[in-house]
Amino acid sequence: MEAQLRRVRIVLIGLGNLGCRFVGLLADKREELIASFGLEFVLVAAADSKGAAVSPQGLDGRTLVALKERGESVAALPGVGRLGMTGLQLLEAVDADALCEASPVHIEAGAEPGLSHIRTALKHGMHVVTPNKGPIVLAHQELVALAREHGVMLRFDGTVAGGLPALNLGTRDLRGALIHRIEAVPNLTTGFVLDLLVRGATMDEAIEQAGAIGALEADPNWDLDGWDAAAKLVILAKAVLGVDASLQDVRREGIRNVDVDSLRKAHAEGRLVRLVAIAERLEDGTYAVSVAPIELPSDHPLGRLGEKEMGIVYETDIFGRITALINEPTPLPSAATMLRDLLDIYG
Amino acid sequence: MEAQLRRVRIVLIGLGNLGCRFVGLLADKREELIASFGLEFVLVAAADSKGAAVSPQGLDGRTLVALKERGESVAALPGVGRLGMTGLQLLEAVDADALCEASPVHIEAGAEPGLSHIRTALKHGMHVVTPNKGPIVLAHQELVALAREHGVMLRFDGTVAGGLPALNLGTRDLRGALIHRIEAVPNLTTGFVLDLLVRGATMDEAIEQAGAIGALEADPNWDLDGWDAAAKLVILAKAVLGVDASLQDVRREGIRNVDVDSLRKAHAEGRLVRLVAIAERLEDGTYAVSVAPIELPSDHPLGRLGEKEMGIVYETDIFGRITALINEPTPLPSAATMLRDLLDIYG
Repeated sequence: MEAQLRRVRIVLIGLGNLGCRFVGLLADKREELIASFGLEFVLVAAADSKGAAVSPQGLDGRTLVALKERGESVAALPGVGRLGMTGLQLLEAVDADALCEASPVHIEAGAEPGLSHIRTALKHGMHVVTPNKGPIVLAHQELVALAREHGVMLRFDGTVAGGLPALNLGTRDLRGALIHRIEAVPNLTTGFVLDLLVRGATMDEAIEQAGAIGALEADPNWDLDGWDAAAKLVILAKAVLGVDASLQDVRREGIRNVDVDSLRKAHAEGRLVRLVAIAERLEDGTYAVSVAPIELPSDHPLGRLGEKEMGIVYETDIFGRITALINEPTPLPSAATMLRDLLDIYG
Repeated sequence: MEAQLRRVRIVLIGLGNLGCRFVGLLADKREELIASFGLEFVLVAAADSKGAAVSPQGLDGRTLVALKERGESVAALPGVGRLGMTGLQLLEAVDADALCEASPVHIEAGAEPGLSHIRTALKHGMHVVTPNKGPIVLAHQELVALAREHGVMLRFDGTVAGGLPALNLGTRDLRGALIHRIEAVPNLTTGFVLDLLVRGATMDEAIEQAGAIGALEADPNWDLDGWDAAAKLVILAKAVLGVDASLQDVRREGIRNVDVDSLRKAHAEGRLVRLVAIAERLEDGTYAVSVAPIELPSDHPLGRLGEKEMGIVYETDIFGRITALINEPTPLPSAATMLRDLLDIYG
């Protein structure tokens, strides 16, 4: 539709599940994005934990994905690989338009190295898109200010509920509304574990099975103790509610101590138990934020969520009650949020 | 948050249910919009079917609403009323930044007078926001081109499913995705009638009750024969799928001939019957578009809709299956889409 082809030079840091799927997606959609938006996204550099690869002409996405699937580092790419080069060094070395930051979430480590990647890219005048919760939880206000100062954009729609545009809905479509209450089921892993418990597994067995299919983070406490849901709630509070909440503000109860008998009874009676993140507006205009396992009746908008589903409910003054749900059988939708964010910037 | 106050001069044409609620909303939210967005929306003119009122300093919203509630025309406003002035004359006479077009839907009459209002405003370099389906169904492509030619914006998020941002979701958050299928329940009235039938009413009684609470359009066929749902599907097809569909392309079956025994049986067995609008991508890349009463099982994402709820399901290649639902107890959310659209333009 566009007359002129725009070439957008992308740096991708983080080549785990999301990063690799994103590379594959850009390769698969290349012709379509050119035809529909006049946009040619060129991956001029990529980094993983062992090194990087740089090519101003563009790295071949399919070659890169195949290499990673064999368990090798991107640094092994012939001719363009740089063994030991870090993400930060890469950002200093390369001329690019946008950073896609998909390194692992390490909130307990000050959200590094992701936070430094994002700071550096913004300071270099690059747009940033990221599904990495850590930097947004710890430094949302600073990063938004930094982006504004440097005249670039920061987008992080993938940080809250995988491929569900929960943030976009709140920040764009509900502007002008007063939000009385947010309820979200923003995490698949805890639902998976809860469903296993319902079906007869012990907590240890359920956790083991979740680990076996790769559903748990390196630190299983992150999901099970509700930190992941709390982090997502903090992002919603900051970006949608304009509240400067921190992880410490969230009254947090995970699923480890859930009573299995009550859980099975609830299920038998048609109520779904999920780890629910809630922000509720109080009389004084502040919001109480909490994460806890809750029994959702079947007529609750989140009460029929399947195993691969997440959702969010916004209760508002002028837009009624709006619910958004996603069925996400693979992590592809989560990876695709980086494309959504890029098209929000360039489309 | 914004340092500078921007004054946006608005013309509103159409002072029915939506128009009046919008006026009230602008009055209620005035201080908040100034504080949050640095935007002062000033209603410099308004028109209904009997006349208009013009005030460069801004009409008082609450006075205007009170007048309309007494059944009078805006032309009766002391000092500023212009008896007999049409919307078109108003647009020629007034200097303004944006038109809010909320006149009644009259597709069978060539979508007039709404279509001419929108054309004229765009040609005068005004942005246009509208929940009026008619002009978009009949002239989407022309109006989009006209807006582009004059460097202004046209927004119509309220045309599809009341206050649900069904269009925004499709046009913004699903960009870059291939949409395999859309299923929508975009109409409250037919659901209301179907539920009355389930509860024992005859079709005539149900239609009478729907009319009595003001749920039916002046022409009840518009809802009951599926024209309203078909119009909304055509807008989705044009704006989201990029398909130039027309009302004639929609295979349309309304609810008049629904078999009441089957309906009650479905309900007793936990299936919800709703008039569903479907766009399905075919092998050849085109979309089959249809509207018909369908039995939705309780595990269908639209299968638990309540009496005041509408919804849409997008099945996509890269974002999984995304569902959005709205519970809209009053028409306020539909009216508020004009504010959403204005903030999309100015926010």
